[in-house]
Amino acid sequence: MTYDPIDYLPYDFANRRHIGPSPAEMEAMFDELGVASLEDLMDQTVPVNIRQAEPLDFGRPLSESELLNRMRVTASKNKVLTSLIGQGYHGTVTPPAIQRNILENPAWYTAYTPYQPEISQGRLEALLNYQTMVCDLTGLEVANASLLDEATACAEAMTTAQRVAKTKAKAFFVDENCHPQNISVIKTRAEPLGIEVIVGSPDDLQADKVFAAIFQYPGTHGHLRDFTDEIEALHANKAVGIVAADPLALCLLKEPGAMGADIAVGSTQRFGVPVGYGGPHAAYMACRDAFKRAMPGRIVGVSIDSHGNRAYRLSLQTREQHIRREKATSNVCTAQALLAVMAGFYAVFHGPKGLRAIAQRIHRKTVRMAKGLEDAGFVVEPKAFFDTITVDVGLLQRGVLQAAVREGVNLRRVGKSKVGITLDERTTPETIEAVWRAFGLVRKDNDFTADYMLPEGLIRTSEYLQHEVFHMNRAETEMMRYMRRLADRDLALDRAMIPLGSCTMKLNSAAEMMPVSWREFSMIHPYVPKDQALGYAELIGDLSKKLCQITGYDDFSMQPNSGAQGEYAGLLTIRDWQDARGQGHRDVCLIPTNAHGTNPASAHMVGWKVVAVACDENGSIDVADFRAKAEKHSDNLAACMITYPSTHGVFEETVTEVCDITHDHGGQVYIDGANMNAMVGLSRPGDLGGDVSHLNLHKTFCIPHGGGGPGMGPIGVKSHLVPHLPSDPQAGAGAVSAAPFGSPSLLPISWAYVLMMGGEGLTQATRVAILNANYIAKRLEGAYDVLYRGTKGRVAHECILDVRPFAESAGVTVEDIAKRLIDCGFHAPTMSWPVAGTLMVEPTESETKAELDRFCDAMLAIRAEIQDIEDGVIAADANPLKFAPHTMEDLVRDWDRPYSREQGCFPPGAFRVDKYWPPVNRVDNAFGDRNLICTCPPMSDMDDTA
Amino acid sequence: MTYDPIDYLPYDFANRRHIGPSPAEMEAMFDELGVASLEDLMDQTVPVNIRQAEPLDFGRPLSESELLNRMRVTASKNKVLTSLIGQGYHGTVTPPAIQRNILENPAWYTAYTPYQPEISQGRLEALLNYQTMVCDLTGLEVANASLLDEATACAEAMTTAQRVAKTKAKAFFVDENCHPQNISVIKTRAEPLGIEVIVGSPDDLQADKVFAAIFQYPGTHGHLRDFTDEIEALHANKAVGIVAADPLALCLLKEPGAMGADIAVGSTQRFGVPVGYGGPHAAYMACRDAFKRAMPGRIVGVSIDSHGNRAYRLSLQTREQHIRREKATSNVCTAQALLAVMAGFYAVFHGPKGLRAIAQRIHRKTVRMAKGLEDAGFVVEPKAFFDTITVDVGLLQRGVLQAAVREGVNLRRVGKSKVGITLDERTTPETIEAVWRAFGLVRKDNDFTADYMLPEGLIRTSEYLQHEVFHMNRAETEMMRYMRRLADRDLALDRAMIPLGSCTMKLNSAAEMMPVSWREFSMIHPYVPKDQALGYAELIGDLSKKLCQITGYDDFSMQPNSGAQGEYAGLLTIRDWQDARGQGHRDVCLIPTNAHGTNPASAHMVGWKVVAVACDENGSIDVADFRAKAEKHSDNLAACMITYPSTHGVFEETVTEVCDITHDHGGQVYIDGANMNAMVGLSRPGDLGGDVSHLNLHKTFCIPHGGGGPGMGPIGVKSHLVPHLPSDPQAGAGAVSAAPFGSPSLLPISWAYVLMMGGEGLTQATRVAILNANYIAKRLEGAYDVLYRGTKGRVAHECILDVRPFAESAGVTVEDIAKRLIDCGFHAPTMSWPVAGTLMVEPTESETKAELDRFCDAMLAIRAEIQDIEDGVIAADANPLKFAPHTMEDLVRDWDRPYSREQGCFPPGAFRVDKYWPPVNRVDNAFGDRNLICTCPPMSDMDDTA
Repeated sequence: MTYDPIDYLPYDFANRRHIGPSPAEMEAMFDELGVASLEDLMDQTVPVNIRQAEPLDFGRPLSESELLNRMRVTASKNKVLTSLIGQGYHGTVTPPAIQRNILENPAWYTAYTPYQPEISQGRLEALLNYQTMVCDLTGLEVANASLLDEATACAEAMTTAQRVAKTKAKAFFVDENCHPQNISVIKTRAEPLGIEVIVGSPDDLQADKVFAAIFQYPGTHGHLRDFTDEIEALHANKAVGIVAADPLALCLLKEPGAMGADIAVGSTQRFGVPVGYGGPHAAYMACRDAFKRAMPGRIVGVSIDSHGNRAYRLSLQTREQHIRREKATSNVCTAQALLAVMAGFYAVFHGPKGLRAIAQRIHRKTVRMAKGLEDAGFVVEPKAFFDTITVDVGLLQRGVLQAAVREGVNLRRVGKSKVGITLDERTTPETIEAVWRAFGLVRKDNDFTADYMLPEGLIRTSEYLQHEVFHMNRAETEMMRYMRRLADRDLALDRAMIPLGSCTMKLNSAAEMMPVSWREFSMIHPYVPKDQALGYAELIGDLSKKLCQITGYDDFSMQPNSGAQGEYAGLLTIRDWQDARGQGHRDVCLIPTNAHGTNPASAHMVGWKVVAVACDENGSIDVADFRAKAEKHSDNLAACMITYPSTHGVFEETVTEVCDITHDHGGQVYIDGANMNAMVGLSRPGDLGGDVSHLNLHKTFCIPHGGGGPGMGPIGVKSHLVPHLPSDPQAGAGAVSAAPFGSPSLLPISWAYVLMMGGEGLTQATRVAILNANYIAKRLEGAYDVLYRGTKGRVAHECILDVRPFAESAGVTVEDIAKRLIDCGFHAPTMSWPVAGTLMVEPTESETKAELDRFCDAMLAIRAEIQDIEDGVIAADANPLKFAPHTMEDLVRDWDRPYSREQGCFPPGAFRVDKYWPPVNRVDNAFGDRNLICTCPPMSDMDDTA
Repeated sequence: MTYDPIDYLPYDFANRRHIGPSPAEMEAMFDELGVASLEDLMDQTVPVNIRQAEPLDFGRPLSESELLNRMRVTASKNKVLTSLIGQGYHGTVTPPAIQRNILENPAWYTAYTPYQPEISQGRLEALLNYQTMVCDLTGLEVANASLLDEATACAEAMTTAQRVAKTKAKAFFVDENCHPQNISVIKTRAEPLGIEVIVGSPDDLQADKVFAAIFQYPGTHGHLRDFTDEIEALHANKAVGIVAADPLALCLLKEPGAMGADIAVGSTQRFGVPVGYGGPHAAYMACRDAFKRAMPGRIVGVSIDSHGNRAYRLSLQTREQHIRREKATSNVCTAQALLAVMAGFYAVFHGPKGLRAIAQRIHRKTVRMAKGLEDAGFVVEPKAFFDTITVDVGLLQRGVLQAAVREGVNLRRVGKSKVGITLDERTTPETIEAVWRAFGLVRKDNDFTADYMLPEGLIRTSEYLQHEVFHMNRAETEMMRYMRRLADRDLALDRAMIPLGSCTMKLNSAAEMMPVSWREFSMIHPYVPKDQALGYAELIGDLSKKLCQITGYDDFSMQPNSGAQGEYAGLLTIRDWQDARGQGHRDVCLIPTNAHGTNPASAHMVGWKVVAVACDENGSIDVADFRAKAEKHSDNLAACMITYPSTHGVFEETVTEVCDITHDHGGQVYIDGANMNAMVGLSRPGDLGGDVSHLNLHKTFCIPHGGGGPGMGPIGVKSHLVPHLPSDPQAGAGAVSAAPFGSPSLLPISWAYVLMMGGEGLTQATRVAILNANYIAKRLEGAYDVLYRGTKGRVAHECILDVRPFAESAGVTVEDIAKRLIDCGFHAPTMSWPVAGTLMVEPTESETKAELDRFCDAMLAIRAEIQDIEDGVIAADANPLKFAPHTMEDLVRDWDRPYSREQGCFPPGAFRVDKYWPPVNRVDNAFGDRNLICTCPPMSDMDDTA
């Protein structure tokens, strides 16, 4: 007998699980494209002069099962101790219902940023709950839907204050009791902007010398202080008062709003989000109503849909950096949506009484801890506190810290003779006793008579979380159903392709996601002794090495926790290098118009002037213009920022020339990694001439978008830049994020991806991403014009469909098409970016031919609907495009439209039985911005048939 | 200042997470009921003479976080070695996408048995995939939707064969190569039925002496044999041929159908379902078409809905034991639905080529293993094999086994001088080398040249898994979306109350479920050395102790892996006890008509005669009749079987009298635990006079229903019965299930529940379950008659609504109401059981007042619709009840009904935005039974708009 050759590998993750089209599907796609093979298509697409010399080789790729075994070995090298280090990171209990139904549920984690509000009502409601919680706890009027981390939020608060302060003062005061990482990131941010940072005691605040001041509450060593007087003094001088506050402490303590604060920031990590060695977590920012238009970050607001029903949406989007470009006031519009959703649900889950009880318990445990130490004669400060105390142990600091580790507890080293202790929701009597033993005390934690030790004047008197959603019945059954209902209102990758140009919505596989929940990754404090995080070190080391191989760079910094942060960190690195070689005056940054939209804002943040470079008619960099501007600014050229392949979806053959010109004029080349999904295994930015790039691990390397965050934007640099990478956040200055490795608990995802794909698998993914984009371009030929193509008529991994002509021919806008795609069961492609009035489509390699065909069928049917308008068959103001998206309510109502229910609700592409119904009709954006409401409206208004 | 008293405990699992009504809601419910308190209601409901003396006390209940910590400590006492023990349990790789999206997804695991097909199309399709897989792999025509385990499937095959065989022979032949647990369970089952079991070599089969024979394939020690000749001989004697086959082996080996087998059984565990210390897994049974009506178990079939569209449903339901009662041919209609769904998806995930490649790899690894041992001089048998070999090691058996354990591997002890080795999907070269080292060989597993060693005549030549579903694009994106689409078609507890009488659909909390996925629980072979399962021992010990406290029994056996198995095991225990005291002739079992429907079938299975006892007009046991029948059968009375509170939803005050009568006449009392949710903490069956009870851990103790299984039905007994409990399945005879502890990987769920609830919490749950049922009864008063009530007008934890009058008054059937409830967004209550034409409602304690109100609103609106028919306002043959359920398609179609779209699709109770739409209209049951199709129909027929 003969046996099958093993032509089929069930364990092949790359080809059978991650990459969408099957071999047979690919053959059919080659036929459609008129190419013989993938290699043939690559030859038509990717210029020979940019191809990398050697194929990627990471050895044999792992199966899912091997990956999980390997991951387990690495994870076991992280030692999970109880960390009472505090400093903004706390043990917390993630309610299992939230872990299962949010964090581990693809309906939540694979969703995109809610730019299309009609298909995002679920997470918009969850984020509105979060904003309401932040407003209530801080006592301020407006909150955004989260920022990256507390330290960057502090820096954002500083620049926000600078924009709104009516004083001429140029300095910024920082409370010396701020967490060290906050001070470091503030200093980093301030320096290029010419802001003088004054660190000192609030007692020494000179309110007339500063445009704003930030105070930490509670202070990093536990001190509590009422900042009302300081803020009053600031206001008297037209300066702004900022409080960085622990939201759990605010459940017991006087809120920043009551002190007169203008802005509050902080981390919601301890609201059920594991520390994860530093992130991701959601930082919050809240402000007075007057400042809302100056506030960075996304803000969820309440509007109405075309039938006047309530609908949620992102408000004030025009503030986003990719829209404002060089006028942007911040490059941080990224949110930590998934983590904000979790924190918001934590508040829903516990309600105000529950949160208060958690805070009280933590406080009482701290009182017992302090009392035990004081009884033994130790000097404990402060006298009144929430959850943090500091103990002077003199020469025994090292001994106590080491004894604590032997007891399974990490304490904080404070100065040379003190030890900090911060308790949390997870602290048990056993923990308290273990700490006492580390101090040499044998004592039982069984005296529960101690009084509260909160400062009398700082007791909170106002109510919070009064909205009904925080008073839901908190039975798990009800919570589970609420989470399911919200999830079902949204359309995420678990139901349909999300063909977003430049956003690379590829598979986030279950095997990649699983280790994120493991306690060996999730329960490590960012500042544990290094020997407790050897698993992370191994993971980060190997991932960095592989990213270097992929990009052609020499080293990576994992610190930037978003793509925009990566850009910013990369430019800071260049700036520092220029400065170190005596060229600190260089401040011109060339940015072609086909570069990524966030680039100009980043350049501004490092204090550079942006000089725009034109594009030719093909959308490629106009090399002559580039050369001319480089020459003109030769003395002051700091860098150029280019995106490769360009945001126009083209591999420009002139890229190496552009890099050479920049270098010839003393500049450095920043290559934006947003489109790295078109390059991995084929071409390396480091080989093209790049000096630094950031990678969007949440795009190219499988970290899920989480409904608008988290992300990771590590930067790779050539060796000469290595000494200029961001510093450790503990080191005083020079950090860009709060934690040394950004959001490290996401890194197992990207590492799993590269381990399971292997070099050839990653390269194949790139080829298929390009194949899929070209297949769409080809199938839509004749119906839609593709705006830009390479020299051989091919696109890269995405393509821009020009729908502008339909505005004139049929009165159909890009928005009409986007909303009509919802009826077809799709998230729209990227709208009006990078070219207004167009759609940018990026299918990624993870979509099958069948799904691409479903999308093309939908797009072709839409084109036919436009044709009907053009031909006068249907009215331009009453047709399926104008009334899109259609809801179930439309079906129930009387139907007086010039097309049938069937045509309206089931256009080609739409599933029949499995139809996705948006919960609202088209959302009125302008109404929402005019009538800005950013907290939960009363439920009595919620009758959605009203 | 003053602080809040801690009146609110955020960590209180019992009151804030598990129990639905909030304190405020409960107050409102007391008002509605006119009671002062829960205790007041209990006094009106639960007779004083049955109350337990002491409150339940398990010490302080644990929070979710404490529970997970405690569970981790216990789990760590299980040692995860690589088990190559085989014997029907194999290492397997659960695809992470299946683990995340099925096993850990409440949309799948909280679903009920698909008795209501319109809301179960998703899992019915998944189960049809499974049945198709089984038919294809075995080469037989019909398969059921799974049985409990392979051993019980063998026993079921025996009794099925007995029913269909046309010979008069009374003996059953069992291949000595069957797994020991299969032989044990067959013997247990055969003995009370008077079947002689002949265990021997197939060479010695005397086909004229038996009504059937069962052969194991591959044999338990790895031998492979073609049974064609034996089966031919059986057929010549009108006897039946049964093959117990490993479905993965069938991917390479000649299938039972090709050998002429009439029936095939086996376990699909190795299709991606973790061993879990013995279960749960899905056993399969397939048979020739001619035998399908004799086959036990649920069968998914294809039918049409009222519009003629394809719809899936359970076929031939009239075979189920609760319907056939004493005429039932089996008490096993329970399926392992969730596990069958997983196994079916495993086949979809890998497809035929993938499964074949997995089987080939395992085989080649086994060849290498054997070759290594043979090269070193060991005698390996058999010469041809699939995945199992046996090595004679003479006196070194103990040494080799121990050396293997030191190498991290469990091998199988075979006889006194041999060692068995069974390889699997997880086996790595490192494992092979470790085994070699245990044999003293230092050798690398790097010679991949070895030939296949499958027997030449047994190579499979037929194709399998040709249906399109097994040839889907297997990209994870596509798989994930397919799982989501199927999940969305169903209505499970994660979206709405499932108020099923007698089925106790309570919360299955995330914290309870999480440990099930932990490898320390899921990756333990059932026959590992005891010192590797100390965590399980601790868990089972403590859970048993607590169940004893709850029930008043003295010991528990965890072996029965379903409620029906528990009944059967309990009766076997009584039978064995009667026999041991010289009363083996006693064979009469009194069963009142208000006892649980499966009871008569169980009594028949132990060879007893059922004598029915009448009920009085209140639905309670007619004690006079009971006494009369006990007296009449005094000499032969073996036992009585009662359900408490009765299936009529009433706490009968006469229960102790009934028990006394039984004991007085030499009988034992079996109290069915189906309604234990009305008793925990209030009353103990052991105190009432029960000698044995089973508990449905999947009802009362939070194991999820999984869409129709798994379950656990452990039995508690008084001390005199302890020696008569089921034996270890390895012990030769006397076992009821394949594994010593049934489906132990579910036990963490129930243990977590009792640990987090504590004694008072459990008691409160019981009280609230009774409150919720009485609240519904009260709110529906006047609209529906409650059929049976206690002496004070209260019901227990469920109530029977009498809807029979509407048949005459309005032509409305119980089915019409059930289907109309789907429009309202509810799973119907139990239909026509225990009283034909009625609805039995059990809300459980986990539902909130709001959800109860939503249900009552729906029921009252339905009553109003009935009234309209009664009043002639709407026609009896064209109204929302008759056309229910309504689908989205109804909305799209032209609407020619005498009520509006709004009235049809959005009756009271229905969510608006979050509306659940059934994917089909009312399913035609008769059509499906007439045209029985139990494998996947071609997808080309699948156009659901046809």
